[in-house]
Amino acid sequence: MPTTYLTQALHRAMRQHPGRLATICGSRRRSYAEFYNRVARLAGGLQQLGMAPGDRVGILALNSDRFLELYFAIWWGGGVVNPVNIRWSTREIAYSLDDCETRILAVDASFAALAADLSECSRCLRTIVYAGDDAARGGMFSYEQLIADHEPVADALRANDDIAGIFYTGGTTGFPKGVMLSHANLHGGAVVALLEGLVHEGDIGLHAAPMFHLADGAFALALFLRGCTQVIVPGFQPERVLEAIQEDRVSAVVLVPTMIQMLVDHPQLAAYRLTSLVRVSYGASPISEALLDRAMQRLPSARFLQCYGQTEMSPIVTVLSPQFHHEARHRGKLRSAGRAALGVEIKIVGADGREVPRGTVGEIAARGPGVMLGYWNRPEQTAAVLRDGWMHTGDGAYMDEEGFVFVVDRVKDMIVSGGENVYSAEVENAIGQHPAVAACAVIGIPDARWGEAVHAVIVCKPGAARITGDDINAYCRAMIAAYKCPRSVEFRDALPLTSTGKVLKTVLREPYWKQQPRRVG
Amino acid sequence: MPTTYLTQALHRAMRQHPGRLATICGSRRRSYAEFYNRVARLAGGLQQLGMAPGDRVGILALNSDRFLELYFAIWWGGGVVNPVNIRWSTREIAYSLDDCETRILAVDASFAALAADLSECSRCLRTIVYAGDDAARGGMFSYEQLIADHEPVADALRANDDIAGIFYTGGTTGFPKGVMLSHANLHGGAVVALLEGLVHEGDIGLHAAPMFHLADGAFALALFLRGCTQVIVPGFQPERVLEAIQEDRVSAVVLVPTMIQMLVDHPQLAAYRLTSLVRVSYGASPISEALLDRAMQRLPSARFLQCYGQTEMSPIVTVLSPQFHHEARHRGKLRSAGRAALGVEIKIVGADGREVPRGTVGEIAARGPGVMLGYWNRPEQTAAVLRDGWMHTGDGAYMDEEGFVFVVDRVKDMIVSGGENVYSAEVENAIGQHPAVAACAVIGIPDARWGEAVHAVIVCKPGAARITGDDINAYCRAMIAAYKCPRSVEFRDALPLTSTGKVLKTVLREPYWKQQPRRVG
Repeated sequence: MPTTYLTQALHRAMRQHPGRLATICGSRRRSYAEFYNRVARLAGGLQQLGMAPGDRVGILALNSDRFLELYFAIWWGGGVVNPVNIRWSTREIAYSLDDCETRILAVDASFAALAADLSECSRCLRTIVYAGDDAARGGMFSYEQLIADHEPVADALRANDDIAGIFYTGGTTGFPKGVMLSHANLHGGAVVALLEGLVHEGDIGLHAAPMFHLADGAFALALFLRGCTQVIVPGFQPERVLEAIQEDRVSAVVLVPTMIQMLVDHPQLAAYRLTSLVRVSYGASPISEALLDRAMQRLPSARFLQCYGQTEMSPIVTVLSPQFHHEARHRGKLRSAGRAALGVEIKIVGADGREVPRGTVGEIAARGPGVMLGYWNRPEQTAAVLRDGWMHTGDGAYMDEEGFVFVVDRVKDMIVSGGENVYSAEVENAIGQHPAVAACAVIGIPDARWGEAVHAVIVCKPGAARITGDDINAYCRAMIAAYKCPRSVEFRDALPLTSTGKVLKTVLREPYWKQQPRRVG
Repeated sequence: MPTTYLTQALHRAMRQHPGRLATICGSRRRSYAEFYNRVARLAGGLQQLGMAPGDRVGILALNSDRFLELYFAIWWGGGVVNPVNIRWSTREIAYSLDDCETRILAVDASFAALAADLSECSRCLRTIVYAGDDAARGGMFSYEQLIADHEPVADALRANDDIAGIFYTGGTTGFPKGVMLSHANLHGGAVVALLEGLVHEGDIGLHAAPMFHLADGAFALALFLRGCTQVIVPGFQPERVLEAIQEDRVSAVVLVPTMIQMLVDHPQLAAYRLTSLVRVSYGASPISEALLDRAMQRLPSARFLQCYGQTEMSPIVTVLSPQFHHEARHRGKLRSAGRAALGVEIKIVGADGREVPRGTVGEIAARGPGVMLGYWNRPEQTAAVLRDGWMHTGDGAYMDEEGFVFVVDRVKDMIVSGGENVYSAEVENAIGQHPAVAACAVIGIPDARWGEAVHAVIVCKPGAARITGDDINAYCRAMIAAYKCPRSVEFRDALPLTSTGKVLKTVLREPYWKQQPRRVG
């Protein structure tokens, strides 16, 4: 019985406010009725291209209104969304598409060339839909033509535990794995966002963070559930964002602290009228008091809210609500990730899986409607993290007496740079392939702009050719995304090791983090 | 995998605010930690009394903190709640307990005597728990002793589609039937209440409406999810309610319009300090403009919100939000039941099950997380109302262009005369305005020419001038279309009523339809 289905938002909107603006993307404005109609036609087009119930359809594009139409058209037609990380290399993307058995991929102008490469190196990819503004490239189907050529089809009404999306997340153990999220998961995640106040009645939301990320995806779904208008910019560019807030009277936005910093420190900030902006939600890392103070002074109408989460939880796990940003007496909580969001239960567990006392560091385990179905085709990796209904997040943290969670370290040494997760193991694997490298360790070090910067500590092989940090960076760029490549490199004679031979990253990090506590997660 | 479970609210509360007040009942105040501890012990006690996973446990009591503890203890111990309508006769209660196969029943002082009768006439009932303030009556187990004698047990963690409660409803159609609601249903219903703003962060809620009703039950669950404090009075008595609001700084309450009227017209109203009361949600019927105006004047801090629902939907279906009460320009919507609540989809369907045009009367069908699992042990009656995931509510209504729903009648009470639909409520409203009429009910009776003819059953005011059927017909013709006016009238001393005060139209119809079955819908 279909009780929880993501397309419900469109059905409700059609009955209550078909004329309201659904999306604003550049000069393009579409009402909910237009959005609904285009979705139901595009769903027919995708079915015509071979999308059968449960089939994955990839989306590789910058932010646009079409990105949101694709989400709903895929669900409407019975498919499963497979949003692709736009920062990955061709090889990484091809791997994820093949792992996901994705045969249809939608791309925009920015990724049309890459799509041609993908067609060659992907085993599964058969059909490419061109969702750019101009004419479709050779061998691709035109998105707009699919809409024009097809009558609206009936909603396939996949629901509840049916898979709605497979989201690839970077693998510490090597290759990325697909997080399977059901209709109930994604709906539950959007409901958490609503219950925690990321979106209010009448909000105008702005998509500036990348849409392929579920942080923005959950925000989009929450806006749809509330029947709000959504403004879309292709990606985060400070001027575009400031203009959009001013022009379209944006009231709510989801960012990462780096983006907040780029906005509030923008030299032209005072020239924009930004009083409509009342809700700024951010994630990926905490905000510093200094930045928060500047932000509150320069965006006086805005209230700030932090979320911590992970894709496997659809994604919100904890929320630090505005009062802990705006009331000085609560400032002690600002370095925390907040408390379990409404509808989410969390506990901190030791290696034995039992809850540890307050103040003791352990792993964050979470339970609730957002817990993923599992990793696509990876029952062993699923079983390793999903135990008794608890998602074991891999994030190390302690909880205080009031339930606030302080994330202290990624169990597997994740670095958060500009809001992107960088897994040190992946970078180490790339560096380690350089013929001159004997050993290496990758850590995050403080960076005023990106939160953390990727830093490599390298031991060279005796007698090997002399190499520089630039050599290492260039070497990595051929294998992994630019943002994962080390921004700084230091050479040593040896790495500090534990008695069992593991690198002591805490020792490597220590000199860099003397002045401020490090938090990753 | 347990993702949605009603006990989550207690687990979260224990981690975040164990010291906060959970319940205030007379002079008794219990923190969340105490509530949690008592629940986990009582669960052990109920298991000791034989409550196995999925077993129903009845609750027959006035409102109290123990009523709420019982809800959670039954879930915690793996059972299913079976709240009993306190207004039913012993025979009706015994029928519902036996139908539900309820072997354990908790009662308070008000129902201890009735429980003794039940033990005799119920086939299933084995064990009675006495949850009054004084010593347990002979043959009953003491609630407080069960708590004292048992250690806390582990949460049984029934979840998702597991049945959480069986709520008996009906009586107008013969014997009551049990509505099976799952953990996901009841959680979904509480989430709808939160999303629609019945409960806000920091609210102090007051239970004045009867707790056995899911209207109050969903309010309670919403308060628990937000970690609020709940004030409980045994039942609706205006002075007790006014005192509780003043003494405990109550901010949110759920009532029916009659209760609102009794409060705002209370002669001592001005003597109470009621400025803490900011949210008054009401259901069961719309509020008149005259009463709303008085209420807004006399409770100036309160904002009003209407809900329409039914137990089968867990229970909220539509909401008329405060703006439609407080902004004069929206007053045209005040006679409506509002719009589909966030998370609920509704449509108005004709006899063929297809959606009818806006403005056309049909049956309200609803879909969403609250749709019941079905009627307990009644697959045919379940299949009659649950079709393609839609709950067919049996309520007749039309929807306007903005999605507002105007309820006109129960579908089964609709009269079809000469191909025209006649809504009994409309005819009753007309007749009811005649100065000699105390009460009336309008039904359809067989008619060779018109299929059904409009027939009125009238109770006259004592001492009123003698009136005839012709007088009534003439009176109605001044107000409603001729085909809606009663073709026949009978006068009686009283109308047959259910325990909740609804007219038993089945009883009125029965003598007329002995020879032929009546077609409904």
